[in-house]
Amino acid sequence: MSYPADHDARRGPSRRRFLLGGAAAGWGAAIALGADAIASPAKPADTTGSGPAEPTQDTAGLRGSAVVPFYGAHQAGVSVSPQAHSTYLALDLHEGVDAEALGRLMRLLTSDAERLTQGRGALADMEPELAQNPSRLTITFGFGPGLLERAGAASPAWLAPLPAFGIDALRAEWSDGDLLIEVASDDPVTIAHATRSLLKSARSFATQRWQQHGFRHAYGSRPQGSTMRNLFGQVDGTVNLVPGTEDFADLVWIADGPLAGGTSLVIRRIAMDMETWDDLAREGREESVGRTLETGAPLTGVAEHDEPDFEAVGPLGFPVIAAEAHIRRARSADTSQRFYRRGYNYDETPGPGETSRSGLIFTTYQADPVAQFVPVQQRLDELDLLNQWTTPIGSAVFAIPPGCREGGYIGETLF
Amino acid sequence: MSYPADHDARRGPSRRRFLLGGAAAGWGAAIALGADAIASPAKPADTTGSGPAEPTQDTAGLRGSAVVPFYGAHQAGVSVSPQAHSTYLALDLHEGVDAEALGRLMRLLTSDAERLTQGRGALADMEPELAQNPSRLTITFGFGPGLLERAGAASPAWLAPLPAFGIDALRAEWSDGDLLIEVASDDPVTIAHATRSLLKSARSFATQRWQQHGFRHAYGSRPQGSTMRNLFGQVDGTVNLVPGTEDFADLVWIADGPLAGGTSLVIRRIAMDMETWDDLAREGREESVGRTLETGAPLTGVAEHDEPDFEAVGPLGFPVIAAEAHIRRARSADTSQRFYRRGYNYDETPGPGETSRSGLIFTTYQADPVAQFVPVQQRLDELDLLNQWTTPIGSAVFAIPPGCREGGYIGETLF
Repeated sequence: MSYPADHDARRGPSRRRFLLGGAAAGWGAAIALGADAIASPAKPADTTGSGPAEPTQDTAGLRGSAVVPFYGAHQAGVSVSPQAHSTYLALDLHEGVDAEALGRLMRLLTSDAERLTQGRGALADMEPELAQNPSRLTITFGFGPGLLERAGAASPAWLAPLPAFGIDALRAEWSDGDLLIEVASDDPVTIAHATRSLLKSARSFATQRWQQHGFRHAYGSRPQGSTMRNLFGQVDGTVNLVPGTEDFADLVWIADGPLAGGTSLVIRRIAMDMETWDDLAREGREESVGRTLETGAPLTGVAEHDEPDFEAVGPLGFPVIAAEAHIRRARSADTSQRFYRRGYNYDETPGPGETSRSGLIFTTYQADPVAQFVPVQQRLDELDLLNQWTTPIGSAVFAIPPGCREGGYIGETLF
Repeated sequence: MSYPADHDARRGPSRRRFLLGGAAAGWGAAIALGADAIASPAKPADTTGSGPAEPTQDTAGLRGSAVVPFYGAHQAGVSVSPQAHSTYLALDLHEGVDAEALGRLMRLLTSDAERLTQGRGALADMEPELAQNPSRLTITFGFGPGLLERAGAASPAWLAPLPAFGIDALRAEWSDGDLLIEVASDDPVTIAHATRSLLKSARSFATQRWQQHGFRHAYGSRPQGSTMRNLFGQVDGTVNLVPGTEDFADLVWIADGPLAGGTSLVIRRIAMDMETWDDLAREGREESVGRTLETGAPLTGVAEHDEPDFEAVGPLGFPVIAAEAHIRRARSADTSQRFYRRGYNYDETPGPGETSRSGLIFTTYQADPVAQFVPVQQRLDELDLLNQWTTPIGSAVFAIPPGCREGGYIGETLF
């Protein structure tokens, strides 16, 4: 088959590039995640025009010009097929920033986000050339409890730190925050530029509290729709809600109130102890999760998306999927206890004597984290073999407000 | 045109993937860098079989399985078209590591590098699944003066820290080192896994001194062969040697002695002060370099690769390209004072009140850095408008030994 690189090298950098606004034919099927997406390609999403986004691309198939629409009922960065890179910024508001100032801040940031995601420089952009390759850039905003308090807005009961879990070793430097900005793109240069542009716009209003840098496989490395692997080598996210399905719409989007069309984000930084994980043979690794490493199939099945048989017993009468295996403990009989995961790996420079400082930026989206996520996490907190090698070191909950129309701004339903 | 994603989403992750060993048809032209590559596509490189590498790819056009051959007269990571991500590790040898131990270390690391770059786990790999998407992974080794001393090997006169430059503000934490390992791939997951695997193999022999993480545009974001942009927004690397040309072979590869087929690497970490750069209007930015920001064309031309006219004067009689402009100062009348640049951007989490902590991992490859690179750097040190916004904060020089054949190991000509 033909291949973008072959063309580009001959045409050179200065040839004109044409955007095909309607060239999204194959993209509808490419947005969905995991098994369900392959078994039954996602519908063209909900009818609001802001479900799974359909990026445009140019005639040469270059990824740089792929654009995710900004305006819509939902913020586009929630349901778009996860980009290769994602940077999460949490900001703390300066003293004295009130509802009026918040309105100005969010108008400014919305303008920046709309322009940057569509491949144009922000209004005050000094390097607009670095905005020319959005590569499916999305910029998503989330509000912490402190921000809604400043705004004088009613805050949902779930917008608060999660209950303490026994496995937690949370650090303030990776937790909480007033304003979350997620900057996600397939291109790391685009993320560096957009992140700086947004911080420049926000700096009269807020100070950075933390940044987390996540990555998945590069776009095009692996079949689109395949489940990501974390740095333990496990497939991570096999059982997941699928954007564009009814389940996703029911369980992820908030149905009414000022946050209608929005959702909530739980973001937890989970350190993975690669050193002690190394002491565990492959059999032990597979037992701890309940899936094979090679394909991600449950230990009772042969393919990744086979339904696990939790009743199956081995020759000695023990369950094939152990009582304390992660996939057994993570499964709830209550189908309302589901959420959408969209995690990223992190890998920071190891310190002296270390060979890695790695982990997972674990994120879930759901209409109500207390009802949907917390019970599952409590069950895992009580018992989960994986807990031996994983430690949550950061945690935060944000309300993700709905999207907006042209002329509006993110958060306008709240201030 | 068809597009990989469209296929993959429908086929799903479990379909079989076939490697096309000889499917490199279009790749020969795609490896070359910069203008010359487009004007005159690179020859199939030198005749050693180890010039610009020709990755294989699978039938679906997935990038993950693209493999750069490991064995050859040169280490493959020097001339391969720069991957999207590159991590540089510098290690310091433990006390007591002698020539014999160095031989063992390099046999081990060579085995790891060969296996990982070809998409197989290292021998002691616990997560071989993370090695399955090499995405043009190359692993390149360099030796500092301390290593050659331990080996009792003759050290070239140029293998020493560069002379001090007035603009330098070097920090030990980003400078020097005994052993350099560069891990470069289009996929960040691959880099995380390979880096950890190599550090595990090396840790009985050496301790990490520094790590630098660099990135360029994602593969496929922009036309292959186009010049990268740095985080100032400038095209960076327009005038460069082109792998596969005679100039490159003459100026980059060492011709004789135990390092024949090798080269040298100068790696400098250059902080870019985005804050003060922001105070400079576009005209000032263009004057400081001597090129336009939009296209990278010299101020006397219209296209990036137009030859600058250093004699041209404006209406008031002043030169169009200022006397202190970067491109004028960087140009030498002595054509032997050229080298191959293969730089990467870096962007670390900014501190409180900062909006970026960004810069360039500036690298040059040349047969003799003292003869080829130092005179140019001295001229820039004396006068270069860009010096106002850039500060070298790390510097190191390494000998890059030649490649090896199957059964051999990197460094075998030295120990």
